[in-house]
Amino acid sequence: MATPMNDDSVEKLLEPFRQAVKCQGDLVKKFKDDNINKEDAEFKQAINELKLRKKALEEQITKWMPKEESIDRLKMEDLLKRRFFYDQSFSIYGGVNGLYDYGPMGCAIKANMLAEWRRHFILEEQMLEVDCSMLTPEIVLKASGHVDRFADFMVKDAKTGECFRADHLIEAHLEKLLKAKDITPEKKTEIERLLPQVDNMKGDDMHRVIVEYKMKSPITNNDLSEPVAFNLMFATSIGPTGQLKGFLRPETAQGMFVNFKRLLEFNQGRLPFAAAQIGNSFRNEISPRSGLIRVREFTMAEIEHFVDPTDKSHPKFETVANLEVQLYSASNQMSGESPQLVRLGDAVKSKLINNETLGYFIGRIYLFMTRVGVDKRKLRFRQHMSNEMAHYACDCWDAECKTSYGWVECVGCADRSAYDLTQHSKFSGEKLVAERPLAAPKKVQVNEVQAHSSIIGKSFGKDTGAITQYLQKLSHDDARVLHDKLEKGDEKITIDGKEFTITRKMFTFRTSEKTVQVEEYVPSVIEPSFGIGRIMYSMWEHNFRIRPESEQRTYFTLPPLIAPYKCAILPLSGNEEFKPFVKQISSILIHAGISHKVDTSSGTIGRRYARSDEIAIPFAITIDFDTLKQPYTVTLRDRDTFRQIRAKIDEMANILQGLSSGTITWGEICSQYPEFIEQQATKEQQ
Amino acid sequence: MATPMNDDSVEKLLEPFRQAVKCQGDLVKKFKDDNINKEDAEFKQAINELKLRKKALEEQITKWMPKEESIDRLKMEDLLKRRFFYDQSFSIYGGVNGLYDYGPMGCAIKANMLAEWRRHFILEEQMLEVDCSMLTPEIVLKASGHVDRFADFMVKDAKTGECFRADHLIEAHLEKLLKAKDITPEKKTEIERLLPQVDNMKGDDMHRVIVEYKMKSPITNNDLSEPVAFNLMFATSIGPTGQLKGFLRPETAQGMFVNFKRLLEFNQGRLPFAAAQIGNSFRNEISPRSGLIRVREFTMAEIEHFVDPTDKSHPKFETVANLEVQLYSASNQMSGESPQLVRLGDAVKSKLINNETLGYFIGRIYLFMTRVGVDKRKLRFRQHMSNEMAHYACDCWDAECKTSYGWVECVGCADRSAYDLTQHSKFSGEKLVAERPLAAPKKVQVNEVQAHSSIIGKSFGKDTGAITQYLQKLSHDDARVLHDKLEKGDEKITIDGKEFTITRKMFTFRTSEKTVQVEEYVPSVIEPSFGIGRIMYSMWEHNFRIRPESEQRTYFTLPPLIAPYKCAILPLSGNEEFKPFVKQISSILIHAGISHKVDTSSGTIGRRYARSDEIAIPFAITIDFDTLKQPYTVTLRDRDTFRQIRAKIDEMANILQGLSSGTITWGEICSQYPEFIEQQATKEQQ
Repeated sequence: MATPMNDDSVEKLLEPFRQAVKCQGDLVKKFKDDNINKEDAEFKQAINELKLRKKALEEQITKWMPKEESIDRLKMEDLLKRRFFYDQSFSIYGGVNGLYDYGPMGCAIKANMLAEWRRHFILEEQMLEVDCSMLTPEIVLKASGHVDRFADFMVKDAKTGECFRADHLIEAHLEKLLKAKDITPEKKTEIERLLPQVDNMKGDDMHRVIVEYKMKSPITNNDLSEPVAFNLMFATSIGPTGQLKGFLRPETAQGMFVNFKRLLEFNQGRLPFAAAQIGNSFRNEISPRSGLIRVREFTMAEIEHFVDPTDKSHPKFETVANLEVQLYSASNQMSGESPQLVRLGDAVKSKLINNETLGYFIGRIYLFMTRVGVDKRKLRFRQHMSNEMAHYACDCWDAECKTSYGWVECVGCADRSAYDLTQHSKFSGEKLVAERPLAAPKKVQVNEVQAHSSIIGKSFGKDTGAITQYLQKLSHDDARVLHDKLEKGDEKITIDGKEFTITRKMFTFRTSEKTVQVEEYVPSVIEPSFGIGRIMYSMWEHNFRIRPESEQRTYFTLPPLIAPYKCAILPLSGNEEFKPFVKQISSILIHAGISHKVDTSSGTIGRRYARSDEIAIPFAITIDFDTLKQPYTVTLRDRDTFRQIRAKIDEMANILQGLSSGTITWGEICSQYPEFIEQQATKEQQ
Repeated sequence: MATPMNDDSVEKLLEPFRQAVKCQGDLVKKFKDDNINKEDAEFKQAINELKLRKKALEEQITKWMPKEESIDRLKMEDLLKRRFFYDQSFSIYGGVNGLYDYGPMGCAIKANMLAEWRRHFILEEQMLEVDCSMLTPEIVLKASGHVDRFADFMVKDAKTGECFRADHLIEAHLEKLLKAKDITPEKKTEIERLLPQVDNMKGDDMHRVIVEYKMKSPITNNDLSEPVAFNLMFATSIGPTGQLKGFLRPETAQGMFVNFKRLLEFNQGRLPFAAAQIGNSFRNEISPRSGLIRVREFTMAEIEHFVDPTDKSHPKFETVANLEVQLYSASNQMSGESPQLVRLGDAVKSKLINNETLGYFIGRIYLFMTRVGVDKRKLRFRQHMSNEMAHYACDCWDAECKTSYGWVECVGCADRSAYDLTQHSKFSGEKLVAERPLAAPKKVQVNEVQAHSSIIGKSFGKDTGAITQYLQKLSHDDARVLHDKLEKGDEKITIDGKEFTITRKMFTFRTSEKTVQVEEYVPSVIEPSFGIGRIMYSMWEHNFRIRPESEQRTYFTLPPLIAPYKCAILPLSGNEEFKPFVKQISSILIHAGISHKVDTSSGTIGRRYARSDEIAIPFAITIDFDTLKQPYTVTLRDRDTFRQIRAKIDEMANILQGLSSGTITWGEICSQYPEFIEQQATKEQQ
C-alpha cells in the first residue's frame, strides 16, 4: 500500500511521468504544426503513445493520493440503500440492470437540487424553460445524427446469446493479462501500447484483437460473435398502425432545437436567449455497471444558449471573471501537467476558453456545483482535445468530479456552433434563422414565380390545381426559361402524361430589386448539459463521513440547501408531556415550508441523532424537560459540529429558514444564542 | 339558441328530465335490492335506459347553462399557442398527434403547480416521495393487470390501414344519424337506446353494430375491419438481447407498490403512511383528439396511502370536516338529482363517503384545486356507480372540472382495498404485509422444514446442493409425509432422473407452537391520482377572460401562486434614464427569488400591459419619470382591477412576496399605499 506523503515528495515521484507525457505531447504538437494527415500511421502511433503515458501518469497520481481522500464505497452504498436514498428498480421481481428508484431521501435531494438549478440558471438568466415530449419520431433523431451514430459495439456469447460491450470486454481482458505474474516484458509492452487504442477502435479492429488474443465470454468461456454496432436508443412505435417509428429521447436537447422558432418569437425575435429543460432521457446501455454512473434512464438539465456567431461576448461575464477554477486544458493534457487554477477572466483573455459566453457558463457551473455540495478540490473542467471533439464543435469543457470510479463527467459545456439548427433545417425544410440589423441597408435580387390560377381555371377546370402547383414549384431557372418562351408564344407542358397548353397570361416570372435592413443567420448554440444523477452521486461521495468514535456511525455532510430534510424533531423520550410540543413545532415548520422529520421512535436520543445524521439532516430540535417550562424553549443541534444552542420555540422557523437558505451560518447562530451543554453528555448520547 | 334564464325557470324546464331519471333509477335499485343477476337481460336493459335518461338530462342542463359560463375555446387556444403556453410537439416535422410541448409559460405554470402540490400534500402529510423508473418490465404490468386489460377496441380502414377507436367511431356515426332530418321516430328511438350501450360493448357487440348500420371509414368511406383489442401501452425491449420485454409505465402507481417493503421499513414498520410520486406516464391512444385532455405522454402526481383495513379513521379529518363540497353521489346520479353541496363531516357520518381517510383526501383535493385556480362552481366530486367501479374497489370519487369538453375527470380518488399489494405478492413471491399488535398474545403453529446439508454432503458430494434444495422446497404436507416415512426407514427420492437414498439424519420436519404478539395483514390502499395536464387545462378555461372594451384583449386571471411570472417590469418608454432602474429592480427580484419578465420592447405602455396580461402576469411594475426623483418609487398595477399604487423600489420585493404567497391581498396593499392615477389615462393605455 502506498503511504500518504507530503506534496513535495509526491511531486518528485511524479516528475518523470510528467516529463514522459510532455515529450510525447511536444512530438504530437510538432506533427500538428506540420499539418500532418490525421490518418498517417506514424501520427496515430504518436497519439496512442501519448494516451498511454497520460494513463500511466494518472495511475501514479491516484496511487499517491492522500488516504483521507479515498472513501469506502461499499460502506457508503450500504448506507444509501439501507436508508433508501436509492435502490435497484423492481427488485422484488429480481431487478433490472441500469434502472434505479430514488426513495424519499434521494427524491427530496433531487427535488432540492433541481429547485436550486432553476433558481441559479433559469431565474437568474431569465431563460425560457420548456417541457417537451420524450417520445420522439425517428426523423428528428435522423436529423440529430442519433439514428446513425448513437451506438456502441457489442459482442455476443455464441451459445447463451449474452451481450457484452466490446470495448469494456477487451479492456478488462487486457488488464487481466497485464496483471499475470508470468507476463513477458515484450508482451507487457505490446499490451500497454494496445490498451489506449481500444477507445477509438471500430468493429473490425476490435474483432482482430478478440481473435488475436483468443478472448472468450468472461462468464461461460464460450466463443464470442463478431462485434456489431448496437444503437443505444429505446425504440417503440407511436400510434396503433405501427407505421410511425419512435424512440425515447437520448437527450433533452432536440426538443429545444425543434421549438427554436416559437422560442425566438416568444423572445420577440431577439438574440441571444437561452432555452432550458429538465427531464428524463434514456440510453439502452449494453451491460450497465458502475451503479448510478451508467444507467438506462436518467434526469438531465440542459441549456441551449442561442447566440450570434459573430458576437459571443456576455454582458455578465465580469461577475465570474475573478473566479479561480481548476482548468485541465488540452495543452495541459498534452504536456503531462496537472490542471491549473486559472482566473476565468485570464482564461478567456488568453483564448484558452474560446469566448466569454462559454467562460461565463463555466463560471456559473462552478458556482452551482460547489453550492450543492461538490468539493471544489475534486472538481475540474477538462477541455476536449481536438481528436475527442465533434467536428462541428469549436470548444468543449467537461466539468468532472473525482469519485471512487475516477474522474466522472458530470456536466458538458460545449460550443456546438450552428450544427443542430442547420441539421433540423435541412431535414424539416423549415428555415431556422435569426435576423441581425445590417450596418447599412442593402439591395438584393428577389425572384417571384406566379401562376395565375383564375386564368388557368378558365381553360382547364378540374386540372387547375395540378397545373398551378406544377408551375409554382418550378425552379427559378426553369421559370425564367418558361417565361421567356411564353413571350414568344404558347408552350406545352406535360403533367402525369397529360399535355396542357400554357399561355402568356397564365404565368409570370419576375425578378426585382429590394432594399433590406436585416440579414438572416443561423445562430450558434452553447450547451451546458447536466447529468443530475452523476452530480448527486459525486456529491454523496464528497460528503460521506465516518465518525472517528465509531466505524458504524456514517453520515453525510450535505449543505442544508440540498439536505432532504432541514431539521429533525426529537422528543428526549416517550414522555407524554412532550407530545403536544412535537405536534406544535411540526405544525410551525409546515406552515413555514420547512421540511422536517419527526422521530418519536424508542431508542436513546444519541441513537436517534445518529439515525438523523445518516440521512444528512443538518439540524435537530430536541424537546427536553426544560421545554415544558415558560418561556418554551428547545435545543438545536448541528450535525457536523455536535454543538447545541437553546432558543425559544417561536424563533425556530426563522432560524431554520436562515440556515437552510444560507443567509445565516451556524457560527453566527452560535454567537447569538446560549450554547447548550447536555448535563450528562456522553459520546454515545451525542 | 337557448337564452340564459334565471335559475327557477330553468329548474322548471329540467324537472321532467329529472323525474325520468329518478323513475328509472328506482327501477334499477329495485332490481338490485332483489339481488338480480347482473347479466340478466332485463336488468341490463334497465341500466341502459338509465344511462340514456341521464344523458338527456345532462344535455338539457348544458343547453340552459348561463352564457357567461361558456368560453370561446378557439380564442383561448389561439392565445395559448400564440404565447407558447403549449403547442404540438415536433410540428416543424408535421407534428405527432397526442404529443404536446409546454413552452416557457406552460412550463412555469406546471412547475408552480407541482411545487404547490408538494407543499400541500407531501410536506403537510410528511409523505414519502419516490421517483421510480418509467421503463417497466412486463411481469410488473402482468401483475397489475395492464398487460391483459389495458386496451381499447379499434377498427382499421380495410384499404389504407388507418385506425379508429371503435367506440368513438360508432358513437359519432350514430349521433350523425340522429341529426339527419329524415330520420323516422322508430329509428330515432332505436339509436337513442343503442348509444348509451356503446361504452360497455365488447368487440363482438361493436362488430354487430358496425355491420348492421353499414358503417364505413369516416375518411375514405372504405370498409372497416372487425374490432380488435389494442393494448394502450408503449412496448420496447430493455437491454441488447431483446429478451426482456418492457413497457413505458401507464401510471406511476406501480413504482410505489413494488417499493412497499422499503417504504414500510423507512417508516420504521408503522402504518398508516403515504407514498407519493410525480412523473410522466404514457398511453398509446388510438386516435387522440380533444387537445390536452387526451394525450399520449402526460405528467401525473399520485399518492398511495397505505392503511390498516380495519381502521380507516384519519387524525386530521376534523380539519376538512366543515368544508362544503359539491358531491355527485351514485344515488344522485340514479335519481336524476343535481350534485349536492354537502359538508364532508356529514358525508362521512352518513356513510355516503366510505371512510374518514377517503373523506380527508377529498377535502384536501378540493382545497388544492381551488387554490391553484379551479373555479369551485365548476368542480364536483362524482362517485363511481357500482357498475363502473373495479370489482376490488370499495369506493371511488372523481374530481371533475366543467370545461367546454364537458365534465372532465381530473383527479381520481379511490379506495382500492388490498388489491395491488396482493397481486404483486402473488406474482413476485415476496410477502407484502404490515404487522399489527394483537390485543392479546396468541399461540400459533409454526412449521419448520430442515435439510441437513452437512450430513447430506458426506454421502452425496457435488449433488448436495440439488438435494438440499429439493428437500427444502417440499410443501409442508409432503415434508410431513417424508418425515414420517424416515422414522420407519430410509427413503428414495428422484431428482432429474437420478435416485438418492435419504436417511433420518438428513431431514427433519418439525411443528412447534409459538407465542406471537403481532399478526400480519395486507394493507388497504387509498389512491388520489392527479392528471396535471387536465387540471392545467381546466384552470385555463376557468380563468380565461375577454376585456369588455375589446374582443382582442384576452387574458388569464390565474392566481399569483400559479402565474408563470409574478411580475412584469416595464419602463414607460425607451428613455435611457429608465434603463439602470430596470436592471436594479430585476436584480432585486432575482435575489428575492421572484420570477418576472422585463419588457423593454417598443410599443405603448398600454400595449405592453396587454401583452403582460395575456400571459397571466398578475402585477406590473412601471418605471416612469417620477421614478427618477428621490425617494425612488415605481407604480404597481393589478392585472384584474387595473388599479395602481405607488411605492418605493425598496418595498417591492416584500410586497410581491406577500402577494405571490397569498399572505397579503391586493385589497390590503391598496389600503396601505397611495393609489396612482395616470395623468392622461385613456382606455388604450391601461
